[in-house]
Amino acid sequence: MATGRATVLVEPNKLETWDVPVVEPEHGGALVRIVLGGVCGSDVHITTGQAGVMPFPIILGHEGIGRIEKLGGFDTDYAGVPVKPGDLVYWSPISACHRCHSCNVLDETPCENSRFFEDASKPNWGSYADFAWLPNGLAFFKLPDGADPLAVAALGCALPTVLRGFDRCGPVRLGETVVVQGAGPVGLSAVLVAKQAGARDVIVIDGVESKLEVARSLGATATVSLSDSPEERRRQIYDIAGPSGPSLVVEAAGFLPAFPEGVDLTGIHGRYVILGLWGAIGTQPISPRDMTTKNITIAGATFPKPKHYYGAMHLAAQLQDKVPLASLVTHRYAIEDADKALDAVHHGKVIKAVIDPELSPAS
Amino acid sequence: MATGRATVLVEPNKLETWDVPVVEPEHGGALVRIVLGGVCGSDVHITTGQAGVMPFPIILGHEGIGRIEKLGGFDTDYAGVPVKPGDLVYWSPISACHRCHSCNVLDETPCENSRFFEDASKPNWGSYADFAWLPNGLAFFKLPDGADPLAVAALGCALPTVLRGFDRCGPVRLGETVVVQGAGPVGLSAVLVAKQAGARDVIVIDGVESKLEVARSLGATATVSLSDSPEERRRQIYDIAGPSGPSLVVEAAGFLPAFPEGVDLTGIHGRYVILGLWGAIGTQPISPRDMTTKNITIAGATFPKPKHYYGAMHLAAQLQDKVPLASLVTHRYAIEDADKALDAVHHGKVIKAVIDPELSPAS
Amino acid sequence: MATGRATVLVEPNKLETWDVPVVEPEHGGALVRIVLGGVCGSDVHITTGQAGVMPFPIILGHEGIGRIEKLGGFDTDYAGVPVKPGDLVYWSPISACHRCHSCNVLDETPCENSRFFEDASKPNWGSYADFAWLPNGLAFFKLPDGADPLAVAALGCALPTVLRGFDRCGPVRLGETVVVQGAGPVGLSAVLVAKQAGARDVIVIDGVESKLEVARSLGATATVSLSDSPEERRRQIYDIAGPSGPSLVVEAAGFLPAFPEGVDLTGIHGRYVILGLWGAIGTQPISPRDMTTKNITIAGATFPKPKHYYGAMHLAAQLQDKVPLASLVTHRYAIEDADKALDAVHHGKVIKAVIDPELSPAS
Amino acid sequence: MATGRATVLVEPNKLETWDVPVVEPEHGGALVRIVLGGVCGSDVHITTGQAGVMPFPIILGHEGIGRIEKLGGFDTDYAGVPVKPGDLVYWSPISACHRCHSCNVLDETPCENSRFFEDASKPNWGSYADFAWLPNGLAFFKLPDGADPLAVAALGCALPTVLRGFDRCGPVRLGETVVVQGAGPVGLSAVLVAKQAGARDVIVIDGVESKLEVARSLGATATVSLSDSPEERRRQIYDIAGPSGPSLVVEAAGFLPAFPEGVDLTGIHGRYVILGLWGAIGTQPISPRDMTTKNITIAGATFPKPKHYYGAMHLAAQLQDKVPLASLVTHRYAIEDADKALDAVHHGKVIKAVIDPELSPAS
Repeated sequence: MATGRATVLVEPNKLETWDVPVVEPEHGGALVRIVLGGVCGSDVHITTGQAGVMPFPIILGHEGIGRIEKLGGFDTDYAGVPVKPGDLVYWSPISACHRCHSCNVLDETPCENSRFFEDASKPNWGSYADFAWLPNGLAFFKLPDGADPLAVAALGCALPTVLRGFDRCGPVRLGETVVVQGAGPVGLSAVLVAKQAGARDVIVIDGVESKLEVARSLGATATVSLSDSPEERRRQIYDIAGPSGPSLVVEAAGFLPAFPEGVDLTGIHGRYVILGLWGAIGTQPISPRDMTTKNITIAGATFPKPKHYYGAMHLAAQLQDKVPLASLVTHRYAIEDADKALDAVHHGKVIKAVIDPELSPAS
Repeated sequence: MATGRATVLVEPNKLETWDVPVVEPEHGGALVRIVLGGVCGSDVHITTGQAGVMPFPIILGHEGIGRIEKLGGFDTDYAGVPVKPGDLVYWSPISACHRCHSCNVLDETPCENSRFFEDASKPNWGSYADFAWLPNGLAFFKLPDGADPLAVAALGCALPTVLRGFDRCGPVRLGETVVVQGAGPVGLSAVLVAKQAGARDVIVIDGVESKLEVARSLGATATVSLSDSPEERRRQIYDIAGPSGPSLVVEAAGFLPAFPEGVDLTGIHGRYVILGLWGAIGTQPISPRDMTTKNITIAGATFPKPKHYYGAMHLAAQLQDKVPLASLVTHRYAIEDADKALDAVHHGKVIKAVIDPELSPAS
Repeated sequence: MATGRATVLVEPNKLETWDVPVVEPEHGGALVRIVLGGVCGSDVHITTGQAGVMPFPIILGHEGIGRIEKLGGFDTDYAGVPVKPGDLVYWSPISACHRCHSCNVLDETPCENSRFFEDASKPNWGSYADFAWLPNGLAFFKLPDGADPLAVAALGCALPTVLRGFDRCGPVRLGETVVVQGAGPVGLSAVLVAKQAGARDVIVIDGVESKLEVARSLGATATVSLSDSPEERRRQIYDIAGPSGPSLVVEAAGFLPAFPEGVDLTGIHGRYVILGLWGAIGTQPISPRDMTTKNITIAGATFPKPKHYYGAMHLAAQLQDKVPLASLVTHRYAIEDADKALDAVHHGKVIKAVIDPELSPAS
Repeated sequence: MATGRATVLVEPNKLETWDVPVVEPEHGGALVRIVLGGVCGSDVHITTGQAGVMPFPIILGHEGIGRIEKLGGFDTDYAGVPVKPGDLVYWSPISACHRCHSCNVLDETPCENSRFFEDASKPNWGSYADFAWLPNGLAFFKLPDGADPLAVAALGCALPTVLRGFDRCGPVRLGETVVVQGAGPVGLSAVLVAKQAGARDVIVIDGVESKLEVARSLGATATVSLSDSPEERRRQIYDIAGPSGPSLVVEAAGFLPAFPEGVDLTGIHGRYVILGLWGAIGTQPISPRDMTTKNITIAGATFPKPKHYYGAMHLAAQLQDKVPLASLVTHRYAIEDADKALDAVHHGKVIKAVIDPELSPAS
């Protein structure tokens, strides 16, 4: 029986490389040979246990690009595009049940029965592996012709998350002044989208100069250092935005104190979109009065739909020659070196790391 | 020279009745004989000084209905409806400058140059008076035929505030479950609007049973007592709303702890609209993470536009025979008894009090 | 083997009653004993062949309410509500594939692979029958406690169609003036929804006085007769709406000349929603210039989503005691008398006809 | 008494150059020395009488940039920005009355009392002149520092018209496929805005290759020739857009047959925005059925608000170094040569012509 390697999180902080069976696709699904598995910041939290209890053992990895090995009875992808073995595909790691209140009454994600992880001993779509078995209902999409897998992988699930956020909370408008808190993958994605959508000013706040430099390469028009005081940061931003302030602020910091600062930065009649704080447990004090006198809206969003993955893939492909997306992937690791990849992400040594099954373990 | 009486706030907590000149209307304006001057809760805060420094001496009153005494050169109201002396009119107390960033770039209120109060020695539109001199630009609207001034006055500026809030933050949708925090004028207005817009459930929270009874008369389908614990309140609300929770929560409590409770009550993919906390200085802790995982939006709004006054007047007139609006005006006071009116409002002894210039002072 | 009766359209204009096998539900589906099968106007067009070629033989009926006979492995309905055999359910007759461009990129109906009809020899969800076999993916919903099946069936698929239309084209707004062209099921549904959503005026145009009377019973505030000239109809409507005209016009006439009249009736900055003309092949002349100078929007919509069926069911249940919904079902027919039902609908002799499997054929 | 020259349309087709008095600004207004007066296609229609009866004699010109000569008592522009004599300003040619149904109930343009033209013998804001007297209420805005008047003038009132259209009918969305019918000023403005707002494909249809070339310089990604058959045009567009078709079509052709073609081109769930046909009297046949089965929206819009002029000015200034805007102004004419300018525009010999008061008449 054919097998493939996979990085298994046996329990918190215990990683192993297993050989797991290569299983025939089920009807509606696909078997995919992984080309790149993205290493997401949340994989670190999953590994340490901070992200909560998981159905251990699990195969890590929810971002992936692969080549179709075998199709489960359909010859189109989930957007109706013809596919065949050998084609490159990208997928949403979450499938919807289509029979819960969220799916059929609210028409919204998250589905109440979303499957994120499957036991490592079962057919599995974790992407730190040689193969991913995509179950029926897990939307996969053929990469457009000429798309560079690195460009599509570069921003990982952060780009669909940002598209989802603007879909729910209203799009970036031509000519507006946007502030982005944080220059990690979510912040960089917000910069890219804001710039491409015609924002006049895209101002990014972060504490690491090298990240701000990357933000500039993706379209940020100004950067503000976290090493400046909050008052100084505000002054710099209002110098650019004018006295009415920024019309849109995007939280992509994942750091609780960013929240009251973002409310304060949001200009008159502005919007504040919370995308990065989904994992930050705790409260912060804000003034509801300011929300009324400034007429502002604060909106949180998470859990992209398949259309946001589709949109992210196409946006990356469309921009890959104009914006240095592929070069954001600064580090590649073998399946056996997943621990090193997670460590590098944890310590902020990479812009984006990926698992590359073709690599041999570092000796 | 003709004069009329007016309640003048000479300085905080010092009310006097003055005889002030009756002045010819300016071009575009109107001179109006007051029929009813609404006593708003914010008049209490203005009187005590809690609402901040005012250009004392001022004539109190920003809610009013009157009869046109003389027109300043136009024979239509601000909606283009023909008017003549003797017609009943209702007005927005705030005029826009039409030449600031808010007016001409954001197309939004508040205008940066809004005039709220004028010195009592000058032509003046304060409504605790025999006459109001409406300056050019202060939008006044003819009451529709058959409209009862009491019905239009009953919810005061709270009804335009609520219409403004739903205009900015999205309308109440047919069939949704709405929770209203507080059964003062803003809360009652929210109940009325939610019910008329087809909400299936309109659940009101307040601590005073008599107010909850009024809320039921305006359309509340369930009431929750503040004397129950927060957990018990939540349980009662979720019993009605179902596990996804209310899709819309309206803050009309004006009480800071209502804010985190409202965030918590807001259901999956829901909206929380802040209308009552514009005067409550302070912060409250909320969890931004909950905003993302619940995909919720929190929006604040204030400062109605003229169209919201127009809409409020027409809504009241349309409903006056179906809903006991006029009977909400439980107390009337003479101009000279404005202190008694403010005291009654302050102590919650009234649903709605008005100044009635035809009354003689209580002896 | 158990069998049940079903009305089979063998070819255009050839109806037969067949005994068809009662089949076990598939995984995710349900077997339902029909309580009522709604007779829709489009069933007439399907029967005559006007609606195009069908995969004959087919079992007629796409509107239904039934009792669960057996469940296919789930104990919840498609909104996540617990269900068990004996429960009353209502369903959307169209299932989505969840793997086409419409489903996963546009997030919209119609799905490109929608299944409307199945060969009569196969397990089948046609509702002119003793049993409906609901396949996996066909959303069914438990009727709320106390819901009257007649009230839910009364407006048939017209009510979800209208909810879909307002969902796509913008909701009815509190206080607006709405004109509805036509008082068939779609028009009556629009009247009901407009009134419940707080429209001030709901003006209905039709040529049949008895239908206008039904419209008034559902909330129409004024009616206009098609026997008046177009100029006279316009005059009557503008007398009510005022010089800016109606802000919302709903086409529910299904008759081509209604289209230019509707464009003409739509007021300044108004919306015109096309719901009834999906079956009317042909063009009509309109003036694009008028669209710009009036700033109007014309929007067409069709193909409700499951959430619109869910919403329609709940709205009907919520209103059944306030509005004479159940009494709209004026005629019931036995399965064997489907031809008589179709004939009565075709000749406008009924408000709503249903197939009732418990009835014996008329002798 | 100081005078200035002005191009006066005495009656249809009769142009004269008059010396008119230079008048002190009224309170709230400004006196401006014209730098450039844009020649708009509608000026041609006004001159020939096709645009209807005007209050002759009138001074031509509704597009202008000038330097403040004298201010009428305010030291800020209509966005609240400080201004002083010598500053460059741009203005909206239409003022609102702020006291009609459109202004205060609908909160929409056009104002029912809009003043477009004033008798040439009175203080006047026509821009084919040495001076423009901007009345109180006519919104003027200071050009941002460094803005090139040619870049701001290049697209004339077409750019605010397009911004108005997308404001009313919904913005261009990131990644969508946009078709623009016509490459005149409105079409070019739509191309510019669509591209800047992140459209993936911007496909322009026109019959003149040189105009298509200009469209490409502003961001069009593909062009289609009117000399191809409608079927061939459609094929080319769907080859790019894919089988669902373009999600947004913009009518900027000003030519009636464009209307049914635009409806036909609009893809599934798409929008069709009518901007160019405000002057084209007549009807065209379209199929309402197609609107429902494609779920499409058709929306017309005209009459920009001051905010759209403000936005257009800032957008042009922001883009002037990235896009060859200023070079669109291909022809300049003296005030005395207005007839030649109108003739050149009429015969399509120019991309954009302007009146330049500093020029001497061609001999």
